[in-house]
Amino acid sequence: MSGFDIHAYLDRGRRLVDAALDRLLPPETAQPPALHKAMRYSIFAGGKRLRPLLAMAAAEAVGAQPETVLDEACSLELIHTYTLIHDDLPAMDNDDFRRGMPTSHKVFGEAMAILAGDALQTQAFGLLARAYTLGRHSPERLVQVSGMLADACGSQGVIGGQVVDIESEGSSVSLETLDYIHAHKTGKLIHAAVMLGAILGGATPARQQALACYGKAIGLAFQITDDILDVVSTTEQLGKTVGKDAQAGKATYPGLLGMDEARRMQLHYLALSLAALDGYDEKAEPLRAIGRVIVERNN
Amino acid sequence: MSGFDIHAYLDRGRRLVDAALDRLLPPETAQPPALHKAMRYSIFAGGKRLRPLLAMAAAEAVGAQPETVLDEACSLELIHTYTLIHDDLPAMDNDDFRRGMPTSHKVFGEAMAILAGDALQTQAFGLLARAYTLGRHSPERLVQVSGMLADACGSQGVIGGQVVDIESEGSSVSLETLDYIHAHKTGKLIHAAVMLGAILGGATPARQQALACYGKAIGLAFQITDDILDVVSTTEQLGKTVGKDAQAGKATYPGLLGMDEARRMQLHYLALSLAALDGYDEKAEPLRAIGRVIVERNN
Repeated sequence: MSGFDIHAYLDRGRRLVDAALDRLLPPETAQPPALHKAMRYSIFAGGKRLRPLLAMAAAEAVGAQPETVLDEACSLELIHTYTLIHDDLPAMDNDDFRRGMPTSHKVFGEAMAILAGDALQTQAFGLLARAYTLGRHSPERLVQVSGMLADACGSQGVIGGQVVDIESEGSSVSLETLDYIHAHKTGKLIHAAVMLGAILGGATPARQQALACYGKAIGLAFQITDDILDVVSTTEQLGKTVGKDAQAGKATYPGLLGMDEARRMQLHYLALSLAALDGYDEKAEPLRAIGRVIVERNN
Repeated sequence: MSGFDIHAYLDRGRRLVDAALDRLLPPETAQPPALHKAMRYSIFAGGKRLRPLLAMAAAEAVGAQPETVLDEACSLELIHTYTLIHDDLPAMDNDDFRRGMPTSHKVFGEAMAILAGDALQTQAFGLLARAYTLGRHSPERLVQVSGMLADACGSQGVIGGQVVDIESEGSSVSLETLDYIHAHKTGKLIHAAVMLGAILGGATPARQQALACYGKAIGLAFQITDDILDVVSTTEQLGKTVGKDAQAGKATYPGLLGMDEARRMQLHYLALSLAALDGYDEKAEPLRAIGRVIVERNN
């Protein structure tokens, strides 16, 4: 679509998401202040807001106003941030920096980091329920989204992926295991983001199906891109230690398949995601453009 | 009510809850097995199932069959267990034993304990959503319960209580702060248990109000009893190190008010909880009896 500026679209969306998160999270002065300060610190540590933006773009693709799912889309950012806080803990990946800033446990201590992550997860589900009290969405759709999100980020979703990732560290990993880790640790929540927008946007089952295909493909493209960036990017661009995955003995697609094959897969999944949107009109242009941005980003 | 045997009632209820938890949790063989093993280990480490039993008794009090809220009541046990796993972590209370068994991080390591706790929380909300798919409850009631549970166990509920508890360790604590810790860390989830049963059992707003009073009072009676037991019980009865709270410099009601005043408060809150049920008939007898058991227990 000529004239569509994806970067302006994403900037505007990010401002909306940031404002909504600021409005939805308890203030730093709420009791206990240290906890709410820790929750806000990680939420406002410079995320790209990809998941809420995907949800809003998916809602738009099925004919809804993106703002109608804005608050509910924030639940995805709460979940994403909680998993990052916990993944960074000394007992897990032991990362001191994230997006160029000290990680939660470095600033607030381990206990508070664990509890801030816990509370962000709780609030994600609380947000969805609150949308009923506020009359924003029907209880049928909200409970459907809540269940879908729980499946995506539970023991057979994101958390399962993180477990296998940790178990695989330092040992040689098969392509099958790498696929499992990526599909679960990263892919499930990206897929859930698209589905949240689709369901709350009122998509028919057939249209939900097409968006599910888009969501799965774009989740894989995203993770392959992450792996490639870990190899080729500079520390400054990523805001975290580069080559850390390789140093930690973590499997990556370029490491397992070579860089050429990784790049080929990256483009393959982008093409798949775009093909899934074949039946969609220009209202799906933001979704298409986000797909392209995902594989073209440099951080 | 003559002839009502609360201990037989609780035994039967516990067996129902245990069977439901076994049915609702993914099997140990589900991928990734180590995670599901850790989740099941803590869930089946000998809990009293007080919170699900309270929910079932509350549903019964408002005229529903307790079994109709059995699966949903299990979400309370998942939440309770997740908070115990995280509270026991080295970064928090650093407890090696719980209910006479090694704590999760002692058996599975810290990373797995954190993730098992995370996944149990996720599943609690997933369970409630699944009840809609299964046609067990209306989406209106389920989304209301989900929001109520999120409020109860979020940053201004259970997690907030745990934060203030940790912050207060080793310093002199006012009665106001101790009330805050107990009302949040323990009271909120016990209150939520009663309300889950009330809402899913179809209680009118007026009856919900009475049960809310019962829930608040019984939550306080429970925590005061816990504090008293920490002073007077033996290690064998409690299954954890006795006097640990006092050693850790944690404030307790007997420590702050003296044992006599603590016992007086314990009976005061039991009386309050029973008074809240004045308008209820014999179907509330299990709720009344659970209140009495809570203050008379020795572990």
